Amino acid sequence: MKDMRTTSALASDSATRPHVIIIGGGFGGLAAARELRNAPVRITVIDRNNHHTFQPLLYQVAMAGLAPSDITVPIRWRLRNQANTTVLLGDVTGVDADAHSITIDATRTMRYDFLIIASGARHGYFGHDEWEAFAPGLKDIEDAYRIRQRFLLAFENAERTVNPAERAAYLTFVVVGAGPTGVELAGTIPNIAKRSFVKDFRNIDTRTTRVLLVEAGARILSTFPDDLSAAAQRDLIELGVEVRLGTPVTRIERDAVWIGDERISTHSVFWAAGNVASPLGRMLNAPTDRAGRVKVTPDLSVPGHSELFVVGDLCYVERADGRPIPSVAPSANQTGTHAARMIRQTLAKQPRTAFKYFHKGDLATIGRHKAVAAFGRLHFNGYFTWFLWLFVHLMYLVGFRNRVSVLLQWAWAYVTYQPGVRLISGHVPIDDAVVPHPNVAHP
Amino acid sequence: MKDMRTTSALASDSATRPHVIIIGGGFGGLAAARELRNAPVRITVIDRNNHHTFQPLLYQVAMAGLAPSDITVPIRWRLRNQANTTVLLGDVTGVDADAHSITIDATRTMRYDFLIIASGARHGYFGHDEWEAFAPGLKDIEDAYRIRQRFLLAFENAERTVNPAERAAYLTFVVVGAGPTGVELAGTIPNIAKRSFVKDFRNIDTRTTRVLLVEAGARILSTFPDDLSAAAQRDLIELGVEVRLGTPVTRIERDAVWIGDERISTHSVFWAAGNVASPLGRMLNAPTDRAGRVKVTPDLSVPGHSELFVVGDLCYVERADGRPIPSVAPSANQTGTHAARMIRQTLAKQPRTAFKYFHKGDLATIGRHKAVAAFGRLHFNGYFTWFLWLFVHLMYLVGFRNRVSVLLQWAWAYVTYQPGVRLISGHVPIDDAVVPHPNVAHP
Repeated sequence: MKDMRTTSALASDSATRPHVIIIGGGFGGLAAARELRNAPVRITVIDRNNHHTFQPLLYQVAMAGLAPSDITVPIRWRLRNQANTTVLLGDVTGVDADAHSITIDATRTMRYDFLIIASGARHGYFGHDEWEAFAPGLKDIEDAYRIRQRFLLAFENAERTVNPAERAAYLTFVVVGAGPTGVELAGTIPNIAKRSFVKDFRNIDTRTTRVLLVEAGARILSTFPDDLSAAAQRDLIELGVEVRLGTPVTRIERDAVWIGDERISTHSVFWAAGNVASPLGRMLNAPTDRAGRVKVTPDLSVPGHSELFVVGDLCYVERADGRPIPSVAPSANQTGTHAARMIRQTLAKQPRTAFKYFHKGDLATIGRHKAVAAFGRLHFNGYFTWFLWLFVHLMYLVGFRNRVSVLLQWAWAYVTYQPGVRLISGHVPIDDAVVPHPNVAHP
Repeated sequence: MKDMRTTSALASDSATRPHVIIIGGGFGGLAAARELRNAPVRITVIDRNNHHTFQPLLYQVAMAGLAPSDITVPIRWRLRNQANTTVLLGDVTGVDADAHSITIDATRTMRYDFLIIASGARHGYFGHDEWEAFAPGLKDIEDAYRIRQRFLLAFENAERTVNPAERAAYLTFVVVGAGPTGVELAGTIPNIAKRSFVKDFRNIDTRTTRVLLVEAGARILSTFPDDLSAAAQRDLIELGVEVRLGTPVTRIERDAVWIGDERISTHSVFWAAGNVASPLGRMLNAPTDRAGRVKVTPDLSVPGHSELFVVGDLCYVERADGRPIPSVAPSANQTGTHAARMIRQTLAKQPRTAFKYFHKGDLATIGRHKAVAAFGRLHFNGYFTWFLWLFVHLMYLVGFRNRVSVLLQWAWAYVTYQPGVRLISGHVPIDDAVVPHPNVAHP
């Protein structure tokens, strides 16, 4: 009897606690939830996926090196020991900042005392949304499946066709955008095509595979120091990647991409060029930048709404030097944590403080054994940096099981030169832009 | 110059070799291809998937215990060192036994000297094809994704709903058919629901999960000896599974299943009851049994076509005692190998021999620590048998990498009680039969 009273007292205490809604279970949302684990609040984390995705390794899922489950954990499993937190699967379709409420799946509303929006960004096509059908981007597991399917099907189709021009087109891969994701995608293909796959095909020589990396800007890895951009470019060229700088993509079709005026026949264009912020940002009546990111106040709240925070890739906030913080995992972690801290300080009647971004450094890998890294004035590249890259990514992966599994996959791939996860899943609808033979990969 | 002549001599020798087409890269097709690796033939293996699937562990992919890539290997990778063999991705849509040709993807024909059809079976609904939308079966990776998605979404939906009856329906799982797959599916759910998931949800008590195993026949595991059926049934009941014998399913709807006259509210019906042979069997103008399996001659060729063999789940052949050989992996391996041997013997001008089935035994597992096994008159059950089950399945898995990965996943699950692969993939179209909240799981 006493126990029951205690429980119900706790329950009612819990019901009167301020309600914090966190939209998104990516780096920003999870960091915010973790920061509030002992706070006197009740938290609802809402995501349209049941899993958190470790985006920095998504390109390896796309390139058949890792399984999706290697880089994901269920959000509710991650937060299972945090008693003040409920996780809901759902799509947040509306935010009413004045009414302090959100809409889930267009049908159900939920009120909040504090809201943290961490719904991130999708890839954007600079006004050419029609390109998406031919040039998939890479932001979540579904995208990775889509790219993996096209990547592997290209070789299958090359093996099937008897037309030499078509064969060459299938063996041509074009990556658009030379940020870390584009460089990592482009740098992975040559080793797979020229080593892993050589013995597997009878009608094609996979060593003839052509890889182009197209960048509209003047150099690759433009957020990195100049010398590292140059080093990374040398590494890519050594791998056989054709690097095209200062040349924007002007058109993408089912079987070709135009770089400036040049037409390249290909069925495999992978998009790593632009980001568009989550549409929730536009619902706040707050100023946004060109990519739709919300310009937040120094404490990361939305102007005029001290109870509403925007974090991660959806937020626009400047560093001391006036440049916006980059769209990388550490930014999301730091802004998520800061917003949660602001809620804690508000509840403790302490004043708000301004967000300070700490730049941990830049790190990107180029194929096997090569990587570049910048930590302030210290710049590194080569073998050691590659190990550093491996170590850092393993360390930040969420979940011990994932770390062991990724380590195993990497060790396997390192020793055998074989990507371990060459599974074409047929459930991604196959666009006939990519597969001229209907039903080829339908299960 | 001499080298070139040799190469071209070899090439022309190769072109004049008899052409063996093998349809299907499952156990039967792969066994046939391996058996012919040194034979003076050229082989084309055609499958509509790029991978071979280790079907005996498919239920673990469905139950979030293994990743799809743990139990699959690319068919062309498996056969990469077999120089006389080409692997093609494609869907064989027609067979013309008189013309000695097949049609691929309804567009391309290919001639053969010998044909081995190993295209297997799908699950069948005894004339109720409309049930498939509500009760997915389990034959390939796509099916496993579909069942996994429904299984995990049921808990997510139960957590979301505020209606107690709806909640109970979401927490009710019905498995139809009590062969090894049905028993293995039903036996896995209780541990996951009642142990693994307990801490993850706030609004539901996953220990209230209800699991029913429905079998039209008089006992579960009807191909096993009576005493092992009884032992397995005791194990299931101990796990909390409700076993319904002698009660056929009479109707399946979006939110219910009828067992006889009883209506059970559920959104999760998993089908493990019937098989229908591949439609290629019906194209041969050969006698078939009720399930569409081709009644082959003793050497496994089709009556009147000594160059055409049917193996694996698609073939009907009797044992010495008059019963048909069972639809299990060893049958497929043995028939595939025998058909290939018949081709070798024919080329060596040796007479054909009759297929002799060797029954290795029966093995099924029931949840954690329990399994049943029959080897002739020797019957086993309990802890030791469970280890035997683990060992046998690891040993027969194709690929060293897969063995290590599966062993790791099993060890992880054993120690932590957590299924490691709780990833809901949004790309399986979500039938609103299962998800009353639109968009819930769309990525």
